[in-house]
Amino acid sequence: MITTTPAVLSRAREEVEPALRGAVARLVPELRAPVHYHLGWADANGSPVQNGGGKGVRPALALLSAEAVGAPSTVAVPGAVALELVHNFSLLHDDVIDDDRERRHRPTVWALFGIGDAIITGDALFALALEVLLENDGVAGARAASSLVTSTSSMIAGQALDMAFESRLAVSLDECITMEDGKTGALLACAASIGARLAGAAHPLVAALETYGRHLGLAFQAVDDLLGIWGSPEVTGKSVHSDLRQRKKALPLVFALERGPSAATDELRALCANGTLTEHQVERAAELVQACGGRECTERFAEVHLEAALGALDGREFEPGAHAELVDLAHFVVERQA
Amino acid sequence: MITTTPAVLSRAREEVEPALRGAVARLVPELRAPVHYHLGWADANGSPVQNGGGKGVRPALALLSAEAVGAPSTVAVPGAVALELVHNFSLLHDDVIDDDRERRHRPTVWALFGIGDAIITGDALFALALEVLLENDGVAGARAASSLVTSTSSMIAGQALDMAFESRLAVSLDECITMEDGKTGALLACAASIGARLAGAAHPLVAALETYGRHLGLAFQAVDDLLGIWGSPEVTGKSVHSDLRQRKKALPLVFALERGPSAATDELRALCANGTLTEHQVERAAELVQACGGRECTERFAEVHLEAALGALDGREFEPGAHAELVDLAHFVVERQA
Repeated sequence: MITTTPAVLSRAREEVEPALRGAVARLVPELRAPVHYHLGWADANGSPVQNGGGKGVRPALALLSAEAVGAPSTVAVPGAVALELVHNFSLLHDDVIDDDRERRHRPTVWALFGIGDAIITGDALFALALEVLLENDGVAGARAASSLVTSTSSMIAGQALDMAFESRLAVSLDECITMEDGKTGALLACAASIGARLAGAAHPLVAALETYGRHLGLAFQAVDDLLGIWGSPEVTGKSVHSDLRQRKKALPLVFALERGPSAATDELRALCANGTLTEHQVERAAELVQACGGRECTERFAEVHLEAALGALDGREFEPGAHAELVDLAHFVVERQA
Repeated sequence: MITTTPAVLSRAREEVEPALRGAVARLVPELRAPVHYHLGWADANGSPVQNGGGKGVRPALALLSAEAVGAPSTVAVPGAVALELVHNFSLLHDDVIDDDRERRHRPTVWALFGIGDAIITGDALFALALEVLLENDGVAGARAASSLVTSTSSMIAGQALDMAFESRLAVSLDECITMEDGKTGALLACAASIGARLAGAAHPLVAALETYGRHLGLAFQAVDDLLGIWGSPEVTGKSVHSDLRQRKKALPLVFALERGPSAATDELRALCANGTLTEHQVERAAELVQACGGRECTERFAEVHLEAALGALDGREFEPGAHAELVDLAHFVVERQA
C-alpha cells in the first residue's frame, strides 16, 4: 500500500502548467476569468491564488506515456494540456448538469458566475484543447486529436447514460460498466497513450498503454463511486452519500441490486423507487448497499481492473523508470481517499 | 433583388443530409432523440417528421467551395456535415444561455428536454463534428479540422462577448464588430473555404474563399440584427424586438448610440440603462434606434460587406458555375426575411 503521493504528479504539474497557462491566456478575458477561478489560479474576485486544482492524473499519464516509449516528456506536453482542458470542460458542464454547487471545497463556476458562463467556458476549453493539438501541421498531432475527440465522444455518451439512469429503476451491471467506461475509461485510455502517439511510437506500444489507461479508468471510477457514498466529506469536498442522494446508478448500488432477492435488496429497491430521499433514507440506503455486498464487490472490481491495467504493460519493452511510475500512479489512483 | 431561394440550398440539403443522418446515428439513443428533434427530423414524441430545420447556408457554402476550385462536391461532404454539427451545437447552447424558449416556431431543446440535456447534446455534436473530419487519416482532413476548431474558438469568444455586453452600457462600434465577426464571421469563413481545403486547393484560392465567407458572415449577422428588431415574428419565429428586450448590444443599437449627442440618443441611452424594459419602452427603443439612423447604418453595413464578399472572389480562377452560385447565395443571405 502506497501512502505518499507519486512524485510524477508534482513533476507533471510543473512541466505542464506553463503551457496550460499559455493556452488559457489565448482566451478573451471574459472567458479567462472563470477558467482561472475553476483551475484554482484565482479566487472569486480574480486575485491570483494557488490552491491546487485537481490531482492532475491525466497530464501525468500523458507525460509518462511518452517517456515509456523512450521519448522526452516535452513531446507529450501539448497532449497533457489538451487532456487537462477536456477534463475541465467536462467538469464545468457536469457541475451544471448534476446541480453540484461545490467542487474542491469552493463554489462551482455555475454557482458563482451563472449557468451561461459555465456552459460557454466549458465550450471554450474543449475547442482550445483541439487547437493546441492541431496547430502544428503534423500527422502525430492529428492522430492525437483524433484519439482525443473519439474519447471525448465516449465520455459525453457516458455522461448522457449516467443522466438517463438517474430516472430509471433498473440498470444492469453491463449497462453500468458501459456507462463508467465511457465516462472515465475512454479519456484515461487517451491520456495514457497520447504521449506515445505524439512520439510516433509503434502501434502495439500505443495499444498496450491505451489498454492500461482503459482499465485504470474503470478502477478510478469504481473508487470514485466508493468515495461518492463512503468518502469523508472533509476530504472529498462533496456532501456525504452524495451519489445516493442524486439517485446515481453507480457500481455499489448496481452490484447490490444484482444480488439475488432478499429482504435487504427489496428494501433497497423500494427506497430507490422513491422520488426524493430523506437524510435518514439516504443513510439507510448506504447501509443496505453495504449489507448487500455492493461495497465489497466494487472494491474487488477496482482491484481486478488495477491488475488488468498493470498486466497490459507486462511483456512490452517500456522504459523501466516510466514503467515503474505508471505502476505507482495506478496504485495511487486506487488507494486515494479523495 | 433575388426573391427566390437559391437552388444550391436544396441541392446541398439532399447531398449532405444522408451523411449528416449517418453521423447522428452514431450517437447513443439518449443523445440521438434531442438531436432528431432539434434538427426537425422528429417531433416532441420522437415520431419522424420533416419540417425543415435551418436554411442550410453553411453546408451549401461548403459544397460550393469545393466546386469553385474544380473539385466534386462530394469531397466537401464531411466538411458540410461538420459545419452543420458545430452550428447546431452553438444553437443548442446559445438557446440555454439566452433563455430562448422558441426556435423555428417550436420549443427549444432545453425548454422541452431540460438544460442538462441541451448542454450534453450540444457537446456531443461538437465532438462528432471533429470525429467526422479526423477519422480519415489524411492531411486535408486535419487541416479542415484545424480551421474548424480555430473558427469555433472565435465563435465561442464572440458569444462570450455578446453575453458580457448585455450587462454593459457602453459598447463601441469596434467592439460590436469584433463580437459579430467572432459570433458569425469566423464560422462562415470556415464554411466557405472548407471544401477547397478538403480538395487540397492552393492557398490563394482558399484564402479568397475565406475572405468571402468572413464578409458574408458580417453581412449575415447585420441582417440577423435587423430581423432581431424589425423582423416579422411570424416569419422569424422570434418575438418582436427580441434583441432589444434582451439588451443585446447589436449593430443597430450601437450605430444609433455612436451618433453625436441629441435628445433621441439621450433618451435611448437612458432606456438602455434600465434593468428591464416594459413592452412600451421596447417599442420606443426600436423607434429611437431607427430615428438615430441605427437601422439605415446597419443596412448599409450589410451592403458594404456583401460587396466586399463578392469582391474577394473577383480576379481568381474559380469555376464559373460555382462562382455564380456563391454570388447568388450571398445576395440571398442579405435579402432574406427570416
